[in-house]
Amino acid sequence: MKKLKRSARLVEMTHYLLSRPHQLVPLTVFADRYDSAKSSISEDLAIIKEVFEGEGIGELHTLAGAAGGVKYVPKTGQREARQIVERICRMLEQPDRLLPGGYLYMSDILGQPTIMNDVGKMFASFFSDRPIDVVMTVETKGIPLAYATAAHLHLPVVIVRRDPKVTEGSSVSINYVSGSNKRIHTMTLARRALKEKSNVLIVDDFMHAGGTVRGMMDLLQEFGATVQGVGVLVEAGGVESDELLVNDYVSLAKLTRVDPKTRDIHVEPGNFLEQLKYFL
Amino acid sequence: MKKLKRSARLVEMTHYLLSRPHQLVPLTVFADRYDSAKSSISEDLAIIKEVFEGEGIGELHTLAGAAGGVKYVPKTGQREARQIVERICRMLEQPDRLLPGGYLYMSDILGQPTIMNDVGKMFASFFSDRPIDVVMTVETKGIPLAYATAAHLHLPVVIVRRDPKVTEGSSVSINYVSGSNKRIHTMTLARRALKEKSNVLIVDDFMHAGGTVRGMMDLLQEFGATVQGVGVLVEAGGVESDELLVNDYVSLAKLTRVDPKTRDIHVEPGNFLEQLKYFL
Repeated sequence: MKKLKRSARLVEMTHYLLSRPHQLVPLTVFADRYDSAKSSISEDLAIIKEVFEGEGIGELHTLAGAAGGVKYVPKTGQREARQIVERICRMLEQPDRLLPGGYLYMSDILGQPTIMNDVGKMFASFFSDRPIDVVMTVETKGIPLAYATAAHLHLPVVIVRRDPKVTEGSSVSINYVSGSNKRIHTMTLARRALKEKSNVLIVDDFMHAGGTVRGMMDLLQEFGATVQGVGVLVEAGGVESDELLVNDYVSLAKLTRVDPKTRDIHVEPGNFLEQLKYFL
Repeated sequence: MKKLKRSARLVEMTHYLLSRPHQLVPLTVFADRYDSAKSSISEDLAIIKEVFEGEGIGELHTLAGAAGGVKYVPKTGQREARQIVERICRMLEQPDRLLPGGYLYMSDILGQPTIMNDVGKMFASFFSDRPIDVVMTVETKGIPLAYATAAHLHLPVVIVRRDPKVTEGSSVSINYVSGSNKRIHTMTLARRALKEKSNVLIVDDFMHAGGTVRGMMDLLQEFGATVQGVGVLVEAGGVESDELLVNDYVSLAKLTRVDPKTRDIHVEPGNFLEQLKYFL
């Protein structure tokens, strides 16, 4: 690596850190990479830290000592989080989302990597201090959210399937009752997909009474795993608290009213913003 | 926005561009944002461009004139592409991947957002000049790859389902014959998921004789869409060319031999690297 000027070094270090969230980078990596003194690297990091924290990009944690280094921890700022939640609520309220049966079409929102990335970063910000080994979801629509969250936490993703697959080997299956239609469904996880006693963050796109999330929790028990958190994009409002199968979760948006006749859809912020307030 | 020093401005501009691939940013956005002269912004961009292009991060395209600006186009360098392909080949050759029936367990690789991001960036580099409106895959395992590719191209993702869903509204279904077991399957796409006459990039995790990809192509005909490219992570070797249902595709890796007795798995680079050579 040729010796770079500070300006070029800053650009490269910014890219290097942004593409390695939650990974401790020893200062010697940068010092060797740019053939620079550690003191210069520290000055560079101070500049990057100030911008990252000032602009709501994230935090730069520096650990002193021989095993020390610097770690980029993605954090969505309060103001940005509020804007993202508001934007998603307004999108969900578009009358043409309403489908027969009172369902809301959400695939276009879930299909936008930029939105998924914003939401994933918010979940990653919120759960950044929990000891998590893996992000889990059930196929299909929760998958992009799980990946976006996991990417910002530098964790792997585990996908629960509806049926066992030949391409996944031996598996564990459970039955569960879905909240929306009270039918019995199956979910399956490959044995080798999850180490015993893992710490798991559950992510999903939509939660009604929480039957699917509860199913994932039951499945996790079979692996001796611990649920460290639950994050959903949208929760249905109007579910009686004694009907709710999951108590501890964060939701970005809450679907409070759907009128199939007037096509009036009402969506308000979920408990995420409120909880973020106490958290920060 | 307070006036930032050049050093802080470079950090912020780097982040701003990296999070907006394939989006034209007018220079006035930066000039206003940092209360700086356009000439200073141009100097900053020249520094960023040099680092991005030197380090295999991507290209910075500058368009002059009133409608001009700057656009970050992610491009994986030749050397890095080769390293990523080699690493994936070696991972796929691990003997414990072998499942009954000669299938390979790949979910752990597909479950790593970092690897998916690398591969997605490679596909995005390769197809960056084609007129693509949307990235398409079929559930489930191709989804992370489709999102990673789409994120680098700033495009939406469309997911073909195995069955129609109440949460997606009216849909179009077709039957297709899968290459691996010659059975008839169904695939379905919601009417509103794809605009008529779209230009589509198809992405999937594995291709045997190409039955699934061919199925997606047939489905796309129902929407009057044009296939602009096909990218798969792994293709099966040993398929006779007259059996292959798809001719024009790129693959990162090729599974050339699987011996269930000795558990010997042989994987070599697919045609991606070769095609990249002519392309760059």
